[in-house]
Amino acid sequence: MSQHVVVIGAVALGPKAACRFKRLEPGSRVTMLDMSDVISYGGCGIPYYVSGEVSDETQLMTTSFHMVRDVPFFKDVKGVDVMTRTKAVKIDRDAKKVYWENLDTGETGELDYDQLVVATGATPRSLNLPGEDLEGVHYVSNPHDATDIKDAIAKGKVGSAVVIGAGFIGLEMAEAFTDMWGVDTTVVEIFDQIMPRLVSPDLARMAQNHMEEQGVVFHLGETVKAIEGEGRVQRVITDKRTIEAECVIVSVGVIPNDQLARESGLECHERGGIMVDETMRTNDPAIFSGGDCVVVRNLLTNQPMFLPLGSMANRQGRIIGDNLAGGSSKFDGVLGSFVVKTFETSLAGTGMSLDTAKASGFDAASVLLVQLDRAHFYPTKDLMTLELVYERGTRKVLGIQGFGSSGDAMVGRVNAVAAAMKYGLTIDELSTMELAYSPPFSAAMDVLNSVANMADNDERGINRGVGPQGFVELWDERETGDYCFLDCRETPDAKPFMEKFPDHWCNIPQGEIYKRFEEVPEDKAIVLVCNTGARAYEAQIMLEHKGVKDVQVIRGGMAALKKWGADL
Amino acid sequence: MSQHVVVIGAVALGPKAACRFKRLEPGSRVTMLDMSDVISYGGCGIPYYVSGEVSDETQLMTTSFHMVRDVPFFKDVKGVDVMTRTKAVKIDRDAKKVYWENLDTGETGELDYDQLVVATGATPRSLNLPGEDLEGVHYVSNPHDATDIKDAIAKGKVGSAVVIGAGFIGLEMAEAFTDMWGVDTTVVEIFDQIMPRLVSPDLARMAQNHMEEQGVVFHLGETVKAIEGEGRVQRVITDKRTIEAECVIVSVGVIPNDQLARESGLECHERGGIMVDETMRTNDPAIFSGGDCVVVRNLLTNQPMFLPLGSMANRQGRIIGDNLAGGSSKFDGVLGSFVVKTFETSLAGTGMSLDTAKASGFDAASVLLVQLDRAHFYPTKDLMTLELVYERGTRKVLGIQGFGSSGDAMVGRVNAVAAAMKYGLTIDELSTMELAYSPPFSAAMDVLNSVANMADNDERGINRGVGPQGFVELWDERETGDYCFLDCRETPDAKPFMEKFPDHWCNIPQGEIYKRFEEVPEDKAIVLVCNTGARAYEAQIMLEHKGVKDVQVIRGGMAALKKWGADL
Repeated sequence: MSQHVVVIGAVALGPKAACRFKRLEPGSRVTMLDMSDVISYGGCGIPYYVSGEVSDETQLMTTSFHMVRDVPFFKDVKGVDVMTRTKAVKIDRDAKKVYWENLDTGETGELDYDQLVVATGATPRSLNLPGEDLEGVHYVSNPHDATDIKDAIAKGKVGSAVVIGAGFIGLEMAEAFTDMWGVDTTVVEIFDQIMPRLVSPDLARMAQNHMEEQGVVFHLGETVKAIEGEGRVQRVITDKRTIEAECVIVSVGVIPNDQLARESGLECHERGGIMVDETMRTNDPAIFSGGDCVVVRNLLTNQPMFLPLGSMANRQGRIIGDNLAGGSSKFDGVLGSFVVKTFETSLAGTGMSLDTAKASGFDAASVLLVQLDRAHFYPTKDLMTLELVYERGTRKVLGIQGFGSSGDAMVGRVNAVAAAMKYGLTIDELSTMELAYSPPFSAAMDVLNSVANMADNDERGINRGVGPQGFVELWDERETGDYCFLDCRETPDAKPFMEKFPDHWCNIPQGEIYKRFEEVPEDKAIVLVCNTGARAYEAQIMLEHKGVKDVQVIRGGMAALKKWGADL
Repeated sequence: MSQHVVVIGAVALGPKAACRFKRLEPGSRVTMLDMSDVISYGGCGIPYYVSGEVSDETQLMTTSFHMVRDVPFFKDVKGVDVMTRTKAVKIDRDAKKVYWENLDTGETGELDYDQLVVATGATPRSLNLPGEDLEGVHYVSNPHDATDIKDAIAKGKVGSAVVIGAGFIGLEMAEAFTDMWGVDTTVVEIFDQIMPRLVSPDLARMAQNHMEEQGVVFHLGETVKAIEGEGRVQRVITDKRTIEAECVIVSVGVIPNDQLARESGLECHERGGIMVDETMRTNDPAIFSGGDCVVVRNLLTNQPMFLPLGSMANRQGRIIGDNLAGGSSKFDGVLGSFVVKTFETSLAGTGMSLDTAKASGFDAASVLLVQLDRAHFYPTKDLMTLELVYERGTRKVLGIQGFGSSGDAMVGRVNAVAAAMKYGLTIDELSTMELAYSPPFSAAMDVLNSVANMADNDERGINRGVGPQGFVELWDERETGDYCFLDCRETPDAKPFMEKFPDHWCNIPQGEIYKRFEEVPEDKAIVLVCNTGARAYEAQIMLEHKGVKDVQVIRGGMAALKKWGADL
């Protein structure tokens, strides 16, 4: 039975749904509309085009075998009709018609559909500030933005840039400006950390510290009040300062384009986003939706979640293609996995950060682990920092986030946790999770097993401590004399710090703690430091066995403090 | 309540169990015995020590913070007593005593235990061949082997080597000899592929081809009959040839050391290996066992499985440590995940290969996918080859194996699949598996999602074809005229092959198939080739839509054929 499917939107989900359906029903007809003249592009690649890593903008619009995904391509190769520069102005659900208007010619018309896909995407959030419409102020949303930004840089017009918002796109753009073009780049973020809500302040600070070392300037906890310039942007005014800027990137999130759906009576979430069931159907069984204009179920909270990612659009698009052809494929929901490259390091994660978990009502705790990502004797080994968030009592894993320089290795760990979290992973299961083992790729006790073991110890109350932020807070109190900062590494490692801080830094190697126990002060809280926290944990057990009560481990040890940028 | 725990074996599981228990019960006493003078070493690192990547053998015996894990280390740092060169000769379970003998002094004695851990490990399998005891014939099992092999090479005694067995250790040793020392290295394997049972012939051939390009010679399907030499080894005699060899590595698997346990009446598997429950207890509740001397449950078959890996030993050791201290920690079972580095590429996998799945009675099928591991426009992109094995009907994932040069990226994918397979992962769930997305790390439709999509298409009967081995079999029949080898790439890509094989190689770009349909021969089976198989799949749908029945896709396309080493 041949049918006509209309698809509104031709960027990511639209083409995927259209082509999948067409493969399943080659005899049916598909028409796809889009307001833009460029379609089916990889918007996520824009920062890499700006940086120059992607040399040619057409690479963002080609297949992996170098064919440009334009109107003739969809016609010949995919059998899909595309109308560009065409806006869907109204959906008549009773008559099953879409009314359209050509944005260049003003021509109007209508399309009958048997089934409809709404893939209207999202629009970058505006700050609604004076000066936001100046030349040189950009959002990062389509290839036109990309060429505008890159042209300006390439012409030498941009010596300084301000990025507003320290989320994924903001950080990627800051790297693009700094790394390849040497543009003086400042990131302004309203929250007091980068990647707010997504990672802990400790992990955020590690990535920020690395980006600062590469030359990016950050102003956190700061609000932009105005963007100024004559004709072209010249400066950004925050509540604390004025920053020179010949280019401004506004990257403060996106808003789902649900207006057309809303006007058509399709159910939408109160905070925006079309509601769909697990078959990606709206409340009208003939209309599907997905991608950046919908909300989907968060598997941890069971609440609707807005997760505008190209990866989601592609997976959901295939589900819609299946179901347009009479299938019953399902999209279960999401955990919110992410990764962002920040120069030579990356931040990645899935599920909830500690703050988000607490805000969602979980009795949550987290542990921070710094450990080698492969056998300690293997030359390419590298320290990976992982923070595991879990629910006290149930021991359920609520999330994991990481920072490290072996990006693929870290993303692999995050993905493995996400894969199992869907089924209710506990820290006990993560402790014994099977991970392919060979010295070039992992340690015999993998960093994932270890972070779960650490959570187990935390939950048992036998490994208690704080991360680098917590250390700095304690260290700032050192003049009170309430704390003994006890370095439990071998003496040659501890010596430079003992010499630098003779009144505050002491040393007993972990193996000598029982022998030299009389040196441990009785009247002070003990703060145990070692390279990564492993020996401090062993020392804590020894000290407690000898009756010492107030002992804390610095989790991640000196390695974490260094990454964090602590002033020691 | 203080107790005495005795641990027989001090390599991997023993120390882990001992130290974990000691951390949980610092007031209890632990005594560990080992026959060797070296303990707690990373045996998996031996090939990397031989290659020179690990410069100093003590690195295999140190902690990540460079402390040698010797007897004083265990005493001072871990609080564990160790007796080296000490053999446990008998366990008296009724009296709870272990009888021991010092292998140097002949001294004997006994140890009372409250609980006992049997961590006797495994022994390399011998070939029982004439000449196996010649100087220069080595097993790879402990640091003494490592130093012997490396000393001989470093002294220039080894110009040629034969490795018997093309499993993990065999391949790692072949790489070590060839890569760093330029030794003429030949691998002899009794099966007709490397990594038998673990990966498909197609993947095995890809890795073999890469290793051959690096200079390793392979003789597959060949049986070693004798090892010969005067005093020192000089040659290896197989059923087909004589190979010069100044060094021979016998790497044909290991046998669990279960004799002591068996003699003590502990239940063992008929094919070897101590039987334990999920708390790692033997049939004597006071005796635990784990590591290379036990069998554990295979999660797919529910049958006992022998999986001697350092990673298993470490995870199981911690479980035993917990349970020695009164806990109820569990080790659920295994899937058999693995990875082996082969020069600049790697092979990895989990669960069952197609052959193993069929041999285990599953109605199994597999699909082979070659796809970029990250966004196609991102400069560090690389082709990854994955083979997904699934059960027809239930659509349950039975295994995944891969070959590629971005090792961390591939291992991450395998681990994610393994993490979910434990919970009964289906190809539908893998189709929508959430994987952290950003162009530097993944494609919007990740290679894992794609391989599941391909299995879905295979199960629907809409993507039918064969891999490179299957292509070569068809190509060998080309003179029969029964087949049309139809290249559906753009003409410039196809042209060199049309010129080289004018009678057999035709070309219609996929987008022109409807237009040029009359060129498709009616009387031949169509074999569709493109770069990776994606366009061939689309072409197959188009041809079938036009009524052509006998159409096959070459899965993995020209990319797979190249990796496989096809003569084209």
